[in-house]
Amino acid sequence: MVQHVGVADVARLVGRVGTDAFLLGLVAYLEEDFRRWEAFEKTSRLASHSPTGVIELMPISDGVLYAFKYVNGHPANTGAGLLTVTGLGVLADVATGYPVLLCEMTIATALRTAATSVLAARHLARSDSRTMALIGLGAQAEFQALAFRAALGITRLRVHDVDPRATAKFRRNLHGTGLAVTEAGDAAEAARGADIVTTATALKAHARVLTQAMIEPGMHVNAIGGDCPGKTELEPEILRRASVFVEFLEQARIEGEIQQLGPDTAATELWRVVTGAAPGRRDAAEVTVFDSVGFAIEDFSTLRYLRDLATRTGLFGTLDLVPRLADPKDLFAVLGHGAEAAATSGRGFVAELT
Amino acid sequence: MVQHVGVADVARLVGRVGTDAFLLGLVAYLEEDFRRWEAFEKTSRLASHSPTGVIELMPISDGVLYAFKYVNGHPANTGAGLLTVTGLGVLADVATGYPVLLCEMTIATALRTAATSVLAARHLARSDSRTMALIGLGAQAEFQALAFRAALGITRLRVHDVDPRATAKFRRNLHGTGLAVTEAGDAAEAARGADIVTTATALKAHARVLTQAMIEPGMHVNAIGGDCPGKTELEPEILRRASVFVEFLEQARIEGEIQQLGPDTAATELWRVVTGAAPGRRDAAEVTVFDSVGFAIEDFSTLRYLRDLATRTGLFGTLDLVPRLADPKDLFAVLGHGAEAAATSGRGFVAELT
Repeated sequence: MVQHVGVADVARLVGRVGTDAFLLGLVAYLEEDFRRWEAFEKTSRLASHSPTGVIELMPISDGVLYAFKYVNGHPANTGAGLLTVTGLGVLADVATGYPVLLCEMTIATALRTAATSVLAARHLARSDSRTMALIGLGAQAEFQALAFRAALGITRLRVHDVDPRATAKFRRNLHGTGLAVTEAGDAAEAARGADIVTTATALKAHARVLTQAMIEPGMHVNAIGGDCPGKTELEPEILRRASVFVEFLEQARIEGEIQQLGPDTAATELWRVVTGAAPGRRDAAEVTVFDSVGFAIEDFSTLRYLRDLATRTGLFGTLDLVPRLADPKDLFAVLGHGAEAAATSGRGFVAELT
Repeated sequence: MVQHVGVADVARLVGRVGTDAFLLGLVAYLEEDFRRWEAFEKTSRLASHSPTGVIELMPISDGVLYAFKYVNGHPANTGAGLLTVTGLGVLADVATGYPVLLCEMTIATALRTAATSVLAARHLARSDSRTMALIGLGAQAEFQALAFRAALGITRLRVHDVDPRATAKFRRNLHGTGLAVTEAGDAAEAARGADIVTTATALKAHARVLTQAMIEPGMHVNAIGGDCPGKTELEPEILRRASVFVEFLEQARIEGEIQQLGPDTAATELWRVVTGAAPGRRDAAEVTVFDSVGFAIEDFSTLRYLRDLATRTGLFGTLDLVPRLADPKDLFAVLGHGAEAAATSGRGFVAELT
């Protein structure tokens, strides 16, 4: 049977092991896969655009496991009480082609985005970082805050969102976590004095959430909100002056902040820093930017982690998604032999449809 | 909730309405979508090859619904008691990007391949056709036989397979259906005198299942076994002399029988025949070939049909695959607030994994 990890299963898994342990375990899986980056068959995502949004398929394989994520992005959904981004993922066995796991990827994507952010920040932020500015308090915000606390020891947050309800929600969700949250009147005030600045706004536009004037020596900018053509958060001058790191350069040039600098812009791929092939932060005064758009390997690691964790804890369901046959050439046997006799009662359903 | 139509659900759906009615209903849905072929956003499939097989994603959209199929092809699987081809499909709402249906597509693909074959044969085979040769009695065979009986009035089958167990299985499965089955010693004997010849062999090679010497005036060849580069069933001379029809020319030139004739080969796309833009069979002596490889629109129609039929009959399950939130910006709420307290008991699971 195909394993199924649904929304409630992910919530139960995180609850069972604790948010911190869950995120740190996910970072370890991500790091393992970033270390063997060159072993993956990588392609850019396959996108289908419509007037209201985009639907994408993101496949990836390491030759042993194959994974893909279905993910949408529909900015107007929130007006109808729906999520902007939802997702589902499948893990399959390359040797047989059989799917082995179907997983919700809405919450899992928020968790993996946060885990990827801290994997990058471990190499790019100053190790004495304690204060993070968080600009944009939407669906990603709490995940980012908790991941940075767990993995980097961030204890103070300076936050800003144009919507006071988002700020109230954020405060409510992080109540009791020990994180000191200070509200700022604007992004500049939030960034002032912060060691790390995370931008996670939702506006689909070339926004200037962060300008060069707000950048201080030694800052690490974790830019996760800009993730498709036409959606950016940083003033280009920041990118020209800082050391810029991306997941997959080919994709970042189209979807990341660096789309603003033209198609041949250079940036360091994070896996090279993780493996030691390229330096991360070089000194305490350097400004670093992680221009993150999300890449399929991150979903691969997440699916692999969730499968292992679900198997250990028993927190998963099963799906009747692939026939099990005594004779693999006898697919017809699945239909059984009673179809003809039982048919009369249901024939009308087809007549109604056609 | 996302609707889930699993293996047993498809079997129950077919059983409830009857194989004939099910297939005829599916042909009607296919025909409806082939008629509006130009309304679809079409791309070739996205393939990931490995030494043992291929895994593909096949997306398609008509601007209202988006569908994709995950499908594998692993010829050596049968040696391990596994299916060569399995699949799963997802239907999503383009306006919101939300998935609405997850469906098994192993049996559904066999059903849709048979329904597509008869949609083509309605336009390409002689209307007085009563005898079909069926060469290759694997997983597809019974579906083809029943679809041609239901839609075209085929009553006599002349069959051949190199494996006598496949023939025995085929006879057993079609017992009581009223189809007269004659076994032939080879493909040539099976084809002799047949009105329609269906080739559905599994060998991944440039095979010569059917040669020009076996072709008789007025025959319709339904070639469904050749469906990827390096896998063909017809001697090229057949294609040079006959009128050849394909689903999607761009894809057929790579994956179909016509890959043998070079990259610029002409053939008529079936949708043009269905809409009347191009002629199908022109006279009783013409030889026609449907060079079928399977195209994403067929899966789209099948998913649409299964969703409608499942909704009418109530034969489906539901999946906890997309979070339902009071506030769509409050994704974190899904995790609840008990994560910290409950954590200690499960922390060890992560430690074991990392």
